[in-house]
Amino acid sequence: VDILFYSPDSQRIERWISLLRKEGVGFNPIVWRPGIPPTGARFAIVRLPEEGMFGGENNLKAIFNVGAGVEALMKLKSLPAHIDVVRLEDSGMANKMAEYVMHAVADISRGMDAYRRAHRGRSWLPAPYASFDEWPTGIMGLGVIGRKIALGLANLGYPVSGWSRSPKTLDGVHCYAGPDGFKRFLARSRVLVNVLPLTPETENILDEPLFSLLPPDSYIINIARGEHLNESALLERIAGKKIAGAVLDVFRTEPLPADHLFWDNPAIRITPHIAGTTDIQAAMAQIAAKIKAHEAGLGLTGVVDRAMGY
Amino acid sequence: VDILFYSPDSQRIERWISLLRKEGVGFNPIVWRPGIPPTGARFAIVRLPEEGMFGGENNLKAIFNVGAGVEALMKLKSLPAHIDVVRLEDSGMANKMAEYVMHAVADISRGMDAYRRAHRGRSWLPAPYASFDEWPTGIMGLGVIGRKIALGLANLGYPVSGWSRSPKTLDGVHCYAGPDGFKRFLARSRVLVNVLPLTPETENILDEPLFSLLPPDSYIINIARGEHLNESALLERIAGKKIAGAVLDVFRTEPLPADHLFWDNPAIRITPHIAGTTDIQAAMAQIAAKIKAHEAGLGLTGVVDRAMGY
Repeated sequence: VDILFYSPDSQRIERWISLLRKEGVGFNPIVWRPGIPPTGARFAIVRLPEEGMFGGENNLKAIFNVGAGVEALMKLKSLPAHIDVVRLEDSGMANKMAEYVMHAVADISRGMDAYRRAHRGRSWLPAPYASFDEWPTGIMGLGVIGRKIALGLANLGYPVSGWSRSPKTLDGVHCYAGPDGFKRFLARSRVLVNVLPLTPETENILDEPLFSLLPPDSYIINIARGEHLNESALLERIAGKKIAGAVLDVFRTEPLPADHLFWDNPAIRITPHIAGTTDIQAAMAQIAAKIKAHEAGLGLTGVVDRAMGY
Repeated sequence: VDILFYSPDSQRIERWISLLRKEGVGFNPIVWRPGIPPTGARFAIVRLPEEGMFGGENNLKAIFNVGAGVEALMKLKSLPAHIDVVRLEDSGMANKMAEYVMHAVADISRGMDAYRRAHRGRSWLPAPYASFDEWPTGIMGLGVIGRKIALGLANLGYPVSGWSRSPKTLDGVHCYAGPDGFKRFLARSRVLVNVLPLTPETENILDEPLFSLLPPDSYIINIARGEHLNESALLERIAGKKIAGAVLDVFRTEPLPADHLFWDNPAIRITPHIAGTTDIQAAMAQIAAKIKAHEAGLGLTGVVDRAMGY
């Protein structure tokens, strides 16, 4: 079987091919380059694909996206409607993201930064007891990742709410859905965590009026996509002391440019898109299993709903 | 009913009395001072008690210790054997300690300190993917607190072992017990978390030969008592690069003296005994419930086994 590969970073492609071979998939790899004629490949495995690369691929059954967010694929105007777009399902990423968020929430609610400063000053400055109830947390997006985060925080004792497009239920979590539940959800989210997929509907969701609906002294944690956040609106809210701070792992431009205003803002903590790094070995094992299932005539799981965009 | 109170910090006592009244316990408070004659009180509520304070208290039924660690009470030579010593059972502390440890383990295993340094230098330096399997974690002590920590870490995906005096079982956790299991437990604990009670048997347990039995590049997290740790032995192991670092919340002398060698050691992170701060309101509610139960002729829970010392 012919498989078409593409990533802007060619070293990645070599690693993918080598890992996929170890999973026992027999295939002929074709690496896409601008201008090559249609290859007739049956499958494609891609990250950050280019416009036009699937135009004449009439034999293509499925495109595997290496990652959970498929918005780069969805934006391609030339993506044929009959081809299944398949995203990674978990592969360890949900646990990594849950850990990142639990670390960030603890860092904020326990005032760990103040302890680090006190340490540098050789100061012993215990803060008064703060109950979990003082830190209600809200998770935007209740897919595999959001559910894992919500349950982890709830299990520690945080009051946790969740919000999603369609109604969900989750033990110990107050679930809100759709536009109706949004305001009530935001009003009780002192720490707001974004793990929504990026779609035309969710782009710039972290913006006014959302910010104005949060409780005072609130925090934003964004580990989804930089395009979810209106960066200048966040900076204004922080300057106005309406939002106390933000933990950001994703940005509109990555790497974050050296002259970006976020770097020197003491209320903003920056990590370099590492919250949910893909375990590439687990990812290739998952893709191999899906290819084998497809070749055996079985259905594919993780297929993106084109209308919803995720 | 007469209740005897003592803490080195008299402001704490006022707060305890006021909270206990709100719980609907009718009582006459007596604050212990050196040299006062026996009071005939039925209960005592204490923190860091003084030698001799219970000598002539023949009417005393139970001493409530405000905290989980009762070693200061156990050390009193004048403690009458017939009096029940009662320790706090959880009151939210286990969740706080689990959160502290999960934060510390994430901080270590994800290299969060490197990201904070990179941020200060405006550098975008994502680290390679590290699987949870690279960070096997061991919990010494499997009481309420240790179990909560072990399950929280296992639920994220860490390989977790536990060690306790008597055999325990815990879903998803490799449990070891007694002297026989100790070496095997240590050999698989790259991050070693101590939540043991402080007894003559566990004092200085974090010392040689324990350190020599850990895997290379290991980390120590101590949130139990400073007396568990041989501080100079730890510093030697860190200097020899055999132990990579430590997260310490408790110390032999607290506050940690300004000239202590720990402050400037870059491998050691210090917090001021805040991992499991007692929720004093929940603690007094718990003690009130126990007093009411006792007055109604019911048994006490959380009574310390004098032979075991916890």
